[in-house]
Amino acid sequence: MLNFIDGGVCAAQGFRAAGIHVGVKTHAAWKKDVALIVSDADCAAAAVFTKNVVKAAPIRVDLQHLADGRARAVIANSGNANACAPQGEENARRMCAAAAKAIGCEAGDVLVSSTGVIGQRINVEAIEAGVPELYAALERSAEASDAAAHAIMTTDLEKKEAAVETDVGGRTVRLGGIAKGSGMIHPNMGTMLCFITTDCAISPAMIKAALLETVRVSFNRISVDGDTSTNDTCCVLANGLAGNAVIEEKGPDYEAFAAALKALCVELARKMASDGEGARHLITCTVNGAKSEESAETIAKSVISSTLTKAAVFGADANWGRVLCAMGYSGEDFDPDRVTVRFASGAGEIQVCEKGRGLDFDEALAKKILTEHDVEILIDMEEGQGRCTCWGCDITYDYIKINGDYRT
Amino acid sequence: MLNFIDGGVCAAQGFRAAGIHVGVKTHAAWKKDVALIVSDADCAAAAVFTKNVVKAAPIRVDLQHLADGRARAVIANSGNANACAPQGEENARRMCAAAAKAIGCEAGDVLVSSTGVIGQRINVEAIEAGVPELYAALERSAEASDAAAHAIMTTDLEKKEAAVETDVGGRTVRLGGIAKGSGMIHPNMGTMLCFITTDCAISPAMIKAALLETVRVSFNRISVDGDTSTNDTCCVLANGLAGNAVIEEKGPDYEAFAAALKALCVELARKMASDGEGARHLITCTVNGAKSEESAETIAKSVISSTLTKAAVFGADANWGRVLCAMGYSGEDFDPDRVTVRFASGAGEIQVCEKGRGLDFDEALAKKILTEHDVEILIDMEEGQGRCTCWGCDITYDYIKINGDYRT
Repeated sequence: MLNFIDGGVCAAQGFRAAGIHVGVKTHAAWKKDVALIVSDADCAAAAVFTKNVVKAAPIRVDLQHLADGRARAVIANSGNANACAPQGEENARRMCAAAAKAIGCEAGDVLVSSTGVIGQRINVEAIEAGVPELYAALERSAEASDAAAHAIMTTDLEKKEAAVETDVGGRTVRLGGIAKGSGMIHPNMGTMLCFITTDCAISPAMIKAALLETVRVSFNRISVDGDTSTNDTCCVLANGLAGNAVIEEKGPDYEAFAAALKALCVELARKMASDGEGARHLITCTVNGAKSEESAETIAKSVISSTLTKAAVFGADANWGRVLCAMGYSGEDFDPDRVTVRFASGAGEIQVCEKGRGLDFDEALAKKILTEHDVEILIDMEEGQGRCTCWGCDITYDYIKINGDYRT
Repeated sequence: MLNFIDGGVCAAQGFRAAGIHVGVKTHAAWKKDVALIVSDADCAAAAVFTKNVVKAAPIRVDLQHLADGRARAVIANSGNANACAPQGEENARRMCAAAAKAIGCEAGDVLVSSTGVIGQRINVEAIEAGVPELYAALERSAEASDAAAHAIMTTDLEKKEAAVETDVGGRTVRLGGIAKGSGMIHPNMGTMLCFITTDCAISPAMIKAALLETVRVSFNRISVDGDTSTNDTCCVLANGLAGNAVIEEKGPDYEAFAAALKALCVELARKMASDGEGARHLITCTVNGAKSEESAETIAKSVISSTLTKAAVFGADANWGRVLCAMGYSGEDFDPDRVTVRFASGAGEIQVCEKGRGLDFDEALAKKILTEHDVEILIDMEEGQGRCTCWGCDITYDYIKINGDYRT
C-alpha cells in the first residue's frame, strides 16, 4: 500500500503550517514570503544541504541546530537568500529565535531556510514583526500547506506539493512535502528548498539514512553534479505520532518508509523539473544497458543538462545527434556504435538512431511526439545492466527573460 | 616584433586557399560550403581533436593521415558533420582522394574536416564534382582566405580570421588562421574548426608541442572541460618557406614561434567567444590570486559557463551573487570571505563585492558598464599567485532561436 494523498506538508498527524506576506518581497505585497511549519511533538530530523563552497548563512545555522538530530519547526522565507549578505548568521539566528518564542521551544529546535537574491541584507525586522501573525495563522489543513508552499516560491510558476501514505509495521504512516525551485534542473539555476514532514516513528540515524538514499535517486537526478546553489536544502521532520514501533535499524519497516519517501521525493523532483524556469517540456531521459547505474546516471544527466538538447526539445526538433554528442562528452567511456536512441511521449514512440547511425524516420511523427509536454528520451547502450532515469526541461525564450532581469 | 597583419590563411608564403558552393548546403545555394587550403611545399603538420568519445569520421581519417607528421592540404566542408553518418569514413576518404587528385599529391597528405548536422550521409558526390572548380579557384590572397573562412561557417555570423608575423632566427615568419565555431564557448554548443598555416621551418615534433601548449591557453579557455563536439579540430601546417633554420628543439626560435602562435590563437578564440550563437557580449573573466593557475582556470571557466551569469550579462544585471555561486560549485576549494568581484568595460569599472560581502554600489554605473559589448568580470581571491583569463559570451533569445530549429 502506497498511495498519493492530499494535504501536502500537513498530511501527517501533528503538523501545522502557515504562509503569509511580511515584506521581504517589497515589490509585491500580495506575494507570500514567509512560511512556518510546526510539529506538535518533538521530531527526529535530518537534512541535506548544498555542496557549494559558498554556503548561505541559514545553512550554517541549521548544521548547528541539527547536531542533536532533533527539531520542532522550520521557518523559511523567499525574496532574499541571506547568502553573502551582511549580518547573515546573526539574522538567520534572529529568525529562529522569533519562531521559537512564538512556539515556546528552544531556538536550537528551529530550522531556517532562505531563497532569493544573494548579497543583500535580509529584512529580518519585517520577519520578526510578522511572526506573531504567522504563528496565529498555523493550522493543519490543505489550505495551510498550500499557503506555506506559495510562501517559498520565487520564480516558480507552480507550487510543488505532494503527500503519500503507506503501511509501516501495521500502522498508516503519512509523509508530505512542499518544495520550491526550478532547482538544479537547469545547470546552476537557483535554489531548491524542500521541507518534508512525517508522523512515522523513526530514529534520527535512520531518517538521515533514508533521506540520503532518497535524495540520491530523486533531487540529485534533476541536477548536474556540483551545480548547486548557495542555499539548497532538503530537510525532513518525523514526529512519531503514527504510533508505529520506532524504526531503529534497517529492515521491512525501514524499507517501507524509505520507499514512501522515495516516491514522495521523485514526485516533487519531477514537479521541479517540469516547472524549470520558462520550461514548456518535462524531459525524462532513461538510459538502459550502461556499464553500471553510476555510468547510466552520468550519461543521462549529461543529456538532460545539454543546452543544445534542451533547445532541440524546445524546437520539437528530433536532433538525436545532440543526444549522442552529450553522451560522448559525459566523461563515460562507451562504444557509440552500440547506441540506440528513441523519442517517446503520449503521441507515440519513434526510433531515430540504431547502433550509432541515423535512421530514416517520419519527421512529422517525431515533431508530434516532441510537441507534447512530457517528452522521453530513451537510450539503449548494450554495454551492461546499468539503468537510470533523470529529469530535466527544455530551455526557452522565457528562461532568458526571467534570468536576464531577475535581480532588478 | 610581433604584429597582426592581413591575409588570413594566405598570409604565410606558399599557401593558397579557396572556398565555393558545391551543394552540401542544399537550402542556401549562395552559401559557400567547401574550402581548400593547399601548400606549395610539403608541410610539417599537427592537429588537436575533440576528446568526445563520439568522434566524427574525418577525425578518424586525419589521425591516420597525420601519423607521419606531414601534410600538404586541408579540405573542409560545412553543412554536414559526417558524424554518426552512413559510410562516414569511406566518404571522408573520398574527399581526401578528390583533393589529392586535383593537387597531384597522395590522399594521405590531405586532411579533412566537416561541420554541420550529425547523422545524415554527406553528399560526397557534390564535393567530388566540385573539387575541380575549387582547385581552379585557389589563389594566395586575402580574398581567397576570406572565401575559405566563409566556406566553413555554419551558424557563425562573423568569419574568424587572423594573421601575425614575427621574427624567428632573423627571418620574418608568418602565421595565419581561419576558424569557425561558436565552438565550445556555450557548453556543448557545436563544432569548432581552426586551420592554421605558417611558413616557419619547424619539425613535426616541435609544431605538435607548440600547438598543444597554445590550445591549452586559447581555445580550451573558451571551453568547458569535456564539452567538445564530435568534430572539433585545430590543425597547423608549416611549409618552411620562410627560410629560417629549422626549429628542432626548444630554445629562443621555438619561443618566438610559440608566442606568435599563441597570439594568433587567442585572437581567434576571442573572435569565437564574441560570435557565440546569438551573443551580444564578449565576457572576459580574469581570476587573480587563486591557489594555482589550474585553480584559477577551473574557477574562471565555471563563471564563464554559468548560464545564470550569462543571462545576467545579457540583462546588464550586476548580479555578482551568481558569479560567487558559480565559483562555489566549480569544484575548487577556497574561502568565500576573501573574494572580491569587480565588473569593468570601456564605460568604467565598479567593485560590487568585497571579502565575500555585497557592497552598496552605483546601479546606474553598473548597468552602463554591462551594456558595453566587451564586459570584464574581475575576481581576486587572496589565496595565492594563480592567474587565468577565460572568454565567453552571454546567452540570449537568439541562442534559443538558433538552436531550437537548427536541423530543420
